[in-house]
Amino acid sequence: MSNRIQAVLGALDDDQPQALERLVAFLKIKSISTDPEFASDCRAAAEWSAKTLSDIGFEASVRNTPGHPMVVGHYQPKAPTTGPHVLFYGHYDVQPPDPMDLWDTPPFEPEIKTDPRYGEVIVARGASDDKGQLLTFLEAARAWKSVSGDLPLKISVLLEGEEESGSPSLGPFLDAHRDELKADLALVCDTPQWDGDTPAITTMLRGLAFSEIVVQGANRDLHSGMFGGVAVNSARVLATVLSALHSDEGRVLIPGFYDDIIEPGQAQKEQWTGIADSARSMLDDIGLTQSAGETGRDILEQLWSQPTVEINGLISGYTGPGVKTVIPATASAKISFRLVPGQDPEKILKNFEQFVRSKLPADCSVAFKGSGGSPAIVFDLGTKQMTAAARALEDEFGKRPVMMGCGGSIPIVEQFKSELGMDTLLVGFALDDDRIHAPNEKYNLSSFRHGARAWVRILDGLAGAGD
Amino acid sequence: MSNRIQAVLGALDDDQPQALERLVAFLKIKSISTDPEFASDCRAAAEWSAKTLSDIGFEASVRNTPGHPMVVGHYQPKAPTTGPHVLFYGHYDVQPPDPMDLWDTPPFEPEIKTDPRYGEVIVARGASDDKGQLLTFLEAARAWKSVSGDLPLKISVLLEGEEESGSPSLGPFLDAHRDELKADLALVCDTPQWDGDTPAITTMLRGLAFSEIVVQGANRDLHSGMFGGVAVNSARVLATVLSALHSDEGRVLIPGFYDDIIEPGQAQKEQWTGIADSARSMLDDIGLTQSAGETGRDILEQLWSQPTVEINGLISGYTGPGVKTVIPATASAKISFRLVPGQDPEKILKNFEQFVRSKLPADCSVAFKGSGGSPAIVFDLGTKQMTAAARALEDEFGKRPVMMGCGGSIPIVEQFKSELGMDTLLVGFALDDDRIHAPNEKYNLSSFRHGARAWVRILDGLAGAGD
Repeated sequence: MSNRIQAVLGALDDDQPQALERLVAFLKIKSISTDPEFASDCRAAAEWSAKTLSDIGFEASVRNTPGHPMVVGHYQPKAPTTGPHVLFYGHYDVQPPDPMDLWDTPPFEPEIKTDPRYGEVIVARGASDDKGQLLTFLEAARAWKSVSGDLPLKISVLLEGEEESGSPSLGPFLDAHRDELKADLALVCDTPQWDGDTPAITTMLRGLAFSEIVVQGANRDLHSGMFGGVAVNSARVLATVLSALHSDEGRVLIPGFYDDIIEPGQAQKEQWTGIADSARSMLDDIGLTQSAGETGRDILEQLWSQPTVEINGLISGYTGPGVKTVIPATASAKISFRLVPGQDPEKILKNFEQFVRSKLPADCSVAFKGSGGSPAIVFDLGTKQMTAAARALEDEFGKRPVMMGCGGSIPIVEQFKSELGMDTLLVGFALDDDRIHAPNEKYNLSSFRHGARAWVRILDGLAGAGD
Repeated sequence: MSNRIQAVLGALDDDQPQALERLVAFLKIKSISTDPEFASDCRAAAEWSAKTLSDIGFEASVRNTPGHPMVVGHYQPKAPTTGPHVLFYGHYDVQPPDPMDLWDTPPFEPEIKTDPRYGEVIVARGASDDKGQLLTFLEAARAWKSVSGDLPLKISVLLEGEEESGSPSLGPFLDAHRDELKADLALVCDTPQWDGDTPAITTMLRGLAFSEIVVQGANRDLHSGMFGGVAVNSARVLATVLSALHSDEGRVLIPGFYDDIIEPGQAQKEQWTGIADSARSMLDDIGLTQSAGETGRDILEQLWSQPTVEINGLISGYTGPGVKTVIPATASAKISFRLVPGQDPEKILKNFEQFVRSKLPADCSVAFKGSGGSPAIVFDLGTKQMTAAARALEDEFGKRPVMMGCGGSIPIVEQFKSELGMDTLLVGFALDDDRIHAPNEKYNLSSFRHGARAWVRILDGLAGAGD
């Protein structure tokens, strides 16, 4: 380890009390993006973030949008660097704190508490998602700047205030500021570690496709006494179609569904099998005893590298209180697919539609509404930058990072890829039990400190890795 | 035809404009029994009915129940009569009008419209089922009274307000007022004609059983990114269970479902086969080209003497606009059965529950809510009263009535039989395309007039037939 890094890490550690004060100040701002009542709080959080960037040495500004403002900062190093230009993304907005009565202390009055498992934790809405996480990066930059008077890379920062409310302004903003925001690599700190001791880089994200199917039988709802036994029942047809989507073993039966899948590498699969036992504990919390996924597949494989078809909603006929003996004319299902590398959302949806049509009996028709999707994303594990980041995490934690998949989509990563042609390095220090989006959200102070220290090392590693 | 009948029929015809005004006033009352929000409307419909009975000359009253009130009226003829004491039953409550957006005119603002096939029709919720139908009887009584100053029989009237919501108060009410309500024969006007020109007497009714099943998977709704591929999806389980209820040939697969069925007599089956061709036209009107019933069965057999299982409603997960990638924790289906003579509702429901449980995968549970039902019923075609009624209908329509089965249940008929030991004469003037329980329900004004005229003749016929 170079003397320079040692000095930066030392400065960071010495500055922890002040860093914590800054985190507390940030967490006190009620930047709930989904509730218009808190619009001025969102702006205050944006102003606070821009001020913080300026204090560190960034050229920072608050940019208005039709929704909550964006914060943009740029730092051009004084010394020449061969490292990549990075764009760090985070979000200053938070989820609503409801239900309020389940909080032990008020959500916007941060408290340091002692957790039996993790030691000191800070409890507040946004402590982990994403104020605590994004500050780890800014604290790392602050320490770099204070020790060496410079940052080791060209760094841009983009902080959003609508991540928890669907990011309506983000696409147009990226589009309008393409030249300003385009960098060599995006950095995002909004993901978890593997566990309390083990860091992680998220390298695969499942894609998404979705559609709503509406089955129509007779031209109107019918009385089941007058027509039952003769008229086709759209709800029964829908049930039959939906039940045909999977085999008894949980395999999706849409023709061609698995054809183009690029399986993860053997090393990746082996790493996942090694940690599958601890993954199974996720089921306890949701009241299940076993995976309902395809038999013969490991749980992390099912979650990260296998595609799914899910029914997200069903509606047909009479759903009010009591009995109504109707034969419903229409029956609808909202369907979504989690896609894995290789699968093309358009092709999947086309095959799905064909499959559904092939299952319809006489006198039934089907319409598909609101279809769309985006492909899965997988990052190359072999790049210099990925290698440098993995090494930096191992140096800080003393353990090699788990190369994780993520069952869900992270829309910003997809947008960076499709809009700006950038790959993203997803490194975060949250834990699955941080209670994000829930009462008593917390962030471990050790996550806050090690996270910032890890970013010090990653910036150094990227600076040495070239662009 | 006696001069007396001719005079009554003439008075009835002369009074049609006023009769129609009364029907419009009745239809404006939103007496939706299944929705507690409309409780005061149900009471208003009961008050209106009692007032109407009093105006005709009945001793009438509104009787409270734990649910919606009953209306009871009695008329004791001044002149001696050898005819039976009859109890006329109808219901003043109506089905919910949903889906509202499919109504061309508001459901509780009755409109006279011109139908290309039938001439003038009145469009409103309840126009046919049962407000229009029950008024045919009261208008007949009114005409009798106005012409002869008396009624030809001892007549009691019972009007219910919970027929469309399972009649929870009816059994206890019959039980508590057995002596008051017991008559020689019940009359019910809640059934269809055979076709626009041909009257019918309904002599077989399918029974009904119903239940709501609620499948539960995980202990809460889950994010399909974080859990999709691993967590059981309650909507998918429900679809699988429901699709297992029928074979590809439309036969119900619940064990024991067909075991106890008593098939109709050979003569009855032959009459049905003779009119099966015209029965098939019922499909055209609802936009279907073929029966979806069990293959190898005649259409009237499927409708009148074969049992069914229907899905009446489905709901699960997210059903609002747009996409929500949720794995629903619960999924519900409202299910009802049409039963035929021999089938026991309790046994059918027990076998159904067992069947559903047998289809559940690990980690899923099911609850059954609001189960109930009543058996099918069949009447003797050879009684004096049945013969007199058939003759009266032939006199009015110029065609012999079809002795029909009925696919639907009329629980009151079963209760009159089991509680009060009374048979029921089921004569109605609805048509299959009256859109009962559906948007734009209508009643032909010719049905309204001929119906009332037919009751004038039936009352006369019964008075002559003895008790």
